[in-house]
Amino acid sequence: MGTGQAGAALGLHGGCGTLDRSLMSEAEWAESRSHIAQALRAGWAVLTAGGAALDAVQATVLVLEDSPHFNAGHGAALTEAGTHELDASIMDGSTLAAGAVAGVTRVRNPVLAARAVLESGKAVLLIGPAADEFARASGLAMVKPDYFTTQRRIDALASLRQRALDGSTARASEAEKHGTVGAVARDRHGHLAASTSTGGFNNKPVGRVGDSPIIGAGTYARDGVCAVSCTGQGEVFIRTAAAHDVMARMLYGRESLEQASRTLVFETLQSHGIGAGMIVLGAEGDPLAPFNTLGMYRGWIGTDGRMFVATHQEVHAMGAVS
Amino acid sequence: MGTGQAGAALGLHGGCGTLDRSLMSEAEWAESRSHIAQALRAGWAVLTAGGAALDAVQATVLVLEDSPHFNAGHGAALTEAGTHELDASIMDGSTLAAGAVAGVTRVRNPVLAARAVLESGKAVLLIGPAADEFARASGLAMVKPDYFTTQRRIDALASLRQRALDGSTARASEAEKHGTVGAVARDRHGHLAASTSTGGFNNKPVGRVGDSPIIGAGTYARDGVCAVSCTGQGEVFIRTAAAHDVMARMLYGRESLEQASRTLVFETLQSHGIGAGMIVLGAEGDPLAPFNTLGMYRGWIGTDGRMFVATHQEVHAMGAVS
Repeated sequence: MGTGQAGAALGLHGGCGTLDRSLMSEAEWAESRSHIAQALRAGWAVLTAGGAALDAVQATVLVLEDSPHFNAGHGAALTEAGTHELDASIMDGSTLAAGAVAGVTRVRNPVLAARAVLESGKAVLLIGPAADEFARASGLAMVKPDYFTTQRRIDALASLRQRALDGSTARASEAEKHGTVGAVARDRHGHLAASTSTGGFNNKPVGRVGDSPIIGAGTYARDGVCAVSCTGQGEVFIRTAAAHDVMARMLYGRESLEQASRTLVFETLQSHGIGAGMIVLGAEGDPLAPFNTLGMYRGWIGTDGRMFVATHQEVHAMGAVS
Repeated sequence: MGTGQAGAALGLHGGCGTLDRSLMSEAEWAESRSHIAQALRAGWAVLTAGGAALDAVQATVLVLEDSPHFNAGHGAALTEAGTHELDASIMDGSTLAAGAVAGVTRVRNPVLAARAVLESGKAVLLIGPAADEFARASGLAMVKPDYFTTQRRIDALASLRQRALDGSTARASEAEKHGTVGAVARDRHGHLAASTSTGGFNNKPVGRVGDSPIIGAGTYARDGVCAVSCTGQGEVFIRTAAAHDVMARMLYGRESLEQASRTLVFETLQSHGIGAGMIVLGAEGDPLAPFNTLGMYRGWIGTDGRMFVATHQEVHAMGAVS
């Protein structure tokens, strides 16, 4: 621990909700947990090689975007028009440098587009076709929109449309409605970073942007304080500037990481009647994953190098990875 | 004053920068000041009729959008492609309800589109053509993009392109580069609201979105604490979640409005080497307009009903308006 060369840590979430066990087979649940572990290992490999927290969160989110089990990249939710519009952001807690894209449809990995925006230094947020064109000009892999589509999201959209017709939308599971992925990391130099990526929610209005690409709402990182990535109904996270609020409660209000993040999830956000969760990491690399729903895909590797993966209340210890 | 039926107050900014006096004739300076006064009167009429702060900031920003002297609506900056992409947001401090649009090109008044998004309750942020279509479907006036264009912005873009060629971009005045309008209000019921609208900066990349439509960055309002609208290089306001940071310093750090807003402008934002300004209003309606540039278009009507209008250091007392 401490702020020296040790103290690397990493955490991720893959979205919160009811995570209805009946929606997926046991084999699918096992595969989603294995992808969480794989995403953690990808970020951890960066950190143990002495790499930057910024690179670690990018590597972690990349694996989650490529997995069909999470609502980001391949496997993203569909809009009401049956299309995909993807959002992502990434932030370096050591400089407050940040990059984000919203409403992209062609770049394979939105997190890489967000990183390219950060590196350009010319903008923090690019939207729509111009963001895709920027990604292409930056040399990133581009795909046809159907690359993002999975049968599960097609079924979910059909189910939501049916529910809209018969008036039972309120009973749609959170898993049908939304989801997001995100990561937070602390590197051996004590720097923090955070990243979030999403396809939004199923059946979302075309052009709607949630909190994931909004620095301060879905994502925030500041060295010496905390790194935060959020999941849940994005509008409320924007209105409460949720990720920045966790940071501000700690920095200005002297709240602990646990106090600040739990207050956001169980008071501020819950008071708006929404399901909410976040993965947070303190200055020394202590991970927390508060959520007020039945489940949240999540995992972390603490400064002791031990990995944990979880979807519902029980937490699976995966042993030491370093 | 107090939190009772009295205590209405209103403030606005029309962008900060060097505001080079040689760029406009004395008649134009006088007209810009007169439009500031007109915008204040429009918002004040709402407040003195017992109307909501939310309606007052909307009425104020509307006048500034319609004026050719400010970089929002008619008179907006041009992108590097010679097009207009407009952003706006509005927030109700009593409910934290908010609405915003980014990258719109056809709705005549982006602030009205932001308000329509807020009222819909279905999203906080809509982007691109879908946001214009939402505005049209909401019954708002639509225009051809050249409605927004003024000769002054065409000249500024030509000048900036020339400077890019001869390498003197750094010497371009802030007034050539950017600008924004915004308003904050407190109504007689003690509710606060804030709104911001912009054309971005001249020669901006297509698809680039700054802080103006980002709740927490360019705009924030929370009853009992403050209302904030920002102007300056938007990327830094996003990275520091500037508007929410003013609120958080007051709420969690017990800083005064003056302390919090001046710390943001003269320390946090200035440390990033940018020109920055904001109009802020405290819970009791006390207006402040800190800026670190040579000038900022600004005006306010305090709880005593006296109006002030200013562009550079000197402040013009306009007498009582109520």
